[in-house]
Amino acid sequence: MSTEQDVVDAARRARTASHALALATRATKDAALRAMADALVEAAPQVLAANADDVRRAEEAGTGAHMIDRLRLDEARIEGMAQGLRDVAGLPDPVGDVVRGSTLANGLEMRQVRVPFGVIGMIYEARPNVTADAAGICLKSGNAVLLRGSSSAKSSNTAIVEVLRAAVSSAGLPADGVQLVPGDSHDSVKHLMRARGLVDVLIPRGGAGLIRSVVEESTVPVIETGTGNCHVYVDAGADFEKALAIVMNSKTHRTSVCNSAESLLVHSAIADEFLPTVIEALQEAGVEIHGDERFGEYDGITPVDDDAYAAEFLSMEISAKVVADIDEAIAHIREFSTQHTDAIVTEDQSAARRFVAEVDSAAVLVNASTRFTDGGEFGFGAEIGISTQKLHARGPMGLQEMTSTKYVVTGDGHIR
Amino acid sequence: MSTEQDVVDAARRARTASHALALATRATKDAALRAMADALVEAAPQVLAANADDVRRAEEAGTGAHMIDRLRLDEARIEGMAQGLRDVAGLPDPVGDVVRGSTLANGLEMRQVRVPFGVIGMIYEARPNVTADAAGICLKSGNAVLLRGSSSAKSSNTAIVEVLRAAVSSAGLPADGVQLVPGDSHDSVKHLMRARGLVDVLIPRGGAGLIRSVVEESTVPVIETGTGNCHVYVDAGADFEKALAIVMNSKTHRTSVCNSAESLLVHSAIADEFLPTVIEALQEAGVEIHGDERFGEYDGITPVDDDAYAAEFLSMEISAKVVADIDEAIAHIREFSTQHTDAIVTEDQSAARRFVAEVDSAAVLVNASTRFTDGGEFGFGAEIGISTQKLHARGPMGLQEMTSTKYVVTGDGHIR
Repeated sequence: MSTEQDVVDAARRARTASHALALATRATKDAALRAMADALVEAAPQVLAANADDVRRAEEAGTGAHMIDRLRLDEARIEGMAQGLRDVAGLPDPVGDVVRGSTLANGLEMRQVRVPFGVIGMIYEARPNVTADAAGICLKSGNAVLLRGSSSAKSSNTAIVEVLRAAVSSAGLPADGVQLVPGDSHDSVKHLMRARGLVDVLIPRGGAGLIRSVVEESTVPVIETGTGNCHVYVDAGADFEKALAIVMNSKTHRTSVCNSAESLLVHSAIADEFLPTVIEALQEAGVEIHGDERFGEYDGITPVDDDAYAAEFLSMEISAKVVADIDEAIAHIREFSTQHTDAIVTEDQSAARRFVAEVDSAAVLVNASTRFTDGGEFGFGAEIGISTQKLHARGPMGLQEMTSTKYVVTGDGHIR
Repeated sequence: MSTEQDVVDAARRARTASHALALATRATKDAALRAMADALVEAAPQVLAANADDVRRAEEAGTGAHMIDRLRLDEARIEGMAQGLRDVAGLPDPVGDVVRGSTLANGLEMRQVRVPFGVIGMIYEARPNVTADAAGICLKSGNAVLLRGSSSAKSSNTAIVEVLRAAVSSAGLPADGVQLVPGDSHDSVKHLMRARGLVDVLIPRGGAGLIRSVVEESTVPVIETGTGNCHVYVDAGADFEKALAIVMNSKTHRTSVCNSAESLLVHSAIADEFLPTVIEALQEAGVEIHGDERFGEYDGITPVDDDAYAAEFLSMEISAKVVADIDEAIAHIREFSTQHTDAIVTEDQSAARRFVAEVDSAAVLVNASTRFTDGGEFGFGAEIGISTQKLHARGPMGLQEMTSTKYVVTGDGHIR
């Protein structure tokens, strides 16, 4: 059991640590990241033993094979975590970046400079590799982090954090920059969400239910991540070959991720020609199609309803609709999209231009798979999640999005 | 009385209007802003008559002279509102700005582009000129706005919004881009705060109590503005003449604003020499000094306590303390500052460097009055408030801060 006081105490230690982290040079932070990577590889036997405990408990609890796969670590996954930390060490330091600057009319020198947030709270589910990723990204961006993984991964996370803390400390930075939130009851999450003033920002990563509850209950500012009801709209002006490749890749390349497509819209002018091809390809790949009446003219289509249009299936299912024109496509996306990623396939410049202007999503794609909305693909080098809110950060978040700014104004006795 | 449905309906109309506003060209928006300015000047008699109602009601309710002054409009203030709208018309349009862009290794073209938030909710107190300012800034940044002024200014705000809506409409933009929140009970604020999904961001402007309640209760993302417990730290290396001018200007130039100084810290090494001068000047100007024991050695000092160190006086009062060194100054600021604006006065480069690095406030000033933290002074041309939170925007917020971004990614049939 964790009391509110335990969580507040941890947050206070994090805040104190954040002062040193904010001032740490890039060289020191990179040395710490490399030490963290080496320590993880060296401690692989202990981490794997702790992970085996979690897996055994999950199996005893009858957890599904898919969840257990997410939970399970092996040598390769640990090496992957270590490589992730080394990659972050290789990225530029966002802290101190001058975002803008000028000399004002009165001679005051004004600069807007990137600074760390201070203390970041991460609430996430299942996969223990997020523990190392988040610790690395937060440390590089000069922030202390309070990690609240799922209780199913508690032994793994405890072992990983212990290793990382020792490495951080060995590099001359405060170990309390990386902490697990004490306790594993839901109460500890609650206390974290109320630690306004001690925690600067909360980032929930996980299912829609987790994210909704954090958004509703938190008094700490939240960056909402990732539910993705992503659309592919095949316009009248589409090249069918590209369209088919993009639909199939967006839906079937990896179904369990937030940037996979969940909904297919087809312009009525090409429906006769395109529907048979796309339906056959989807069904051959094992995708269940929840289709409207027009799709229903073909075999094997499940009737669609608004719930299916709104669903984030995260599986081999897709909702599908024939739209009269691009207006109806945009209206449908406005109604059902989670504003994560929506794509148009078209060779028609003015259709592409309209879609890009009128679809208000974190990423709007033209003639490309929805799977490209990703920090790695965007070249950020590291990603802590994909923001689906409009405040602060929108879309894939890398190191830069883990910072705030401050204005530094220098004068020589200036008064108004 | 406004029901929840009234507020939701208004928010839905705002959302519909926001689609047209997001696509409006700069030329159209600037024409609307100029039409709004002209209409306000033309309708001055009606607006002043409505304002006279508010003033009469306030006087009957025994409202203080200071509040009534904030509430009262005259020809000059209306001309000021109109000029503000014309100034906003003259500013660059933030919408469409490319924040960053690159061609990825696979040939995808990636651009991060500024887009409007959509619908902004403004909750503010007393001054009716905020109504026109907020409407202008939101319109220029392509956003619809829901305005919730104080009930004491209801007649004025109703008259102003009626005039502005007609002008917006005459310029070919949807009048529902500018709306008052229906109803004047506290319930209408509550409904606004729960309109998640319809309202993209809430900006409360006003006293600490208002802001706290919005932050606590809102499920809509909030940008917190403005309580300012601003410090001036006079370092051992200060030039006394600059220090005295900066202390006096920061405290007495205008006491009722968030960027006025509320706390004075003096390095012990210069206390003997500097205290008599600064105390005399402050007392001569009519400032009450809440001082520590060291200040207490002089006449007319009120004993200080932690409440006074934490207070945002907004009046001719200041808390004052002699600190052993810059470490104690930074520690004191970390404990009591609202992280709005804190200033150091020093000729010592390494002291300035430390203060800038270690004081984590929206604005950190060196040898300049705290009064410079202001959108106008920073050259933003317009200001909707000063953010004291770290998420999204920090410090004075202009047009750019009223936008989000989206990623536009263009390929030619790209798949992963």
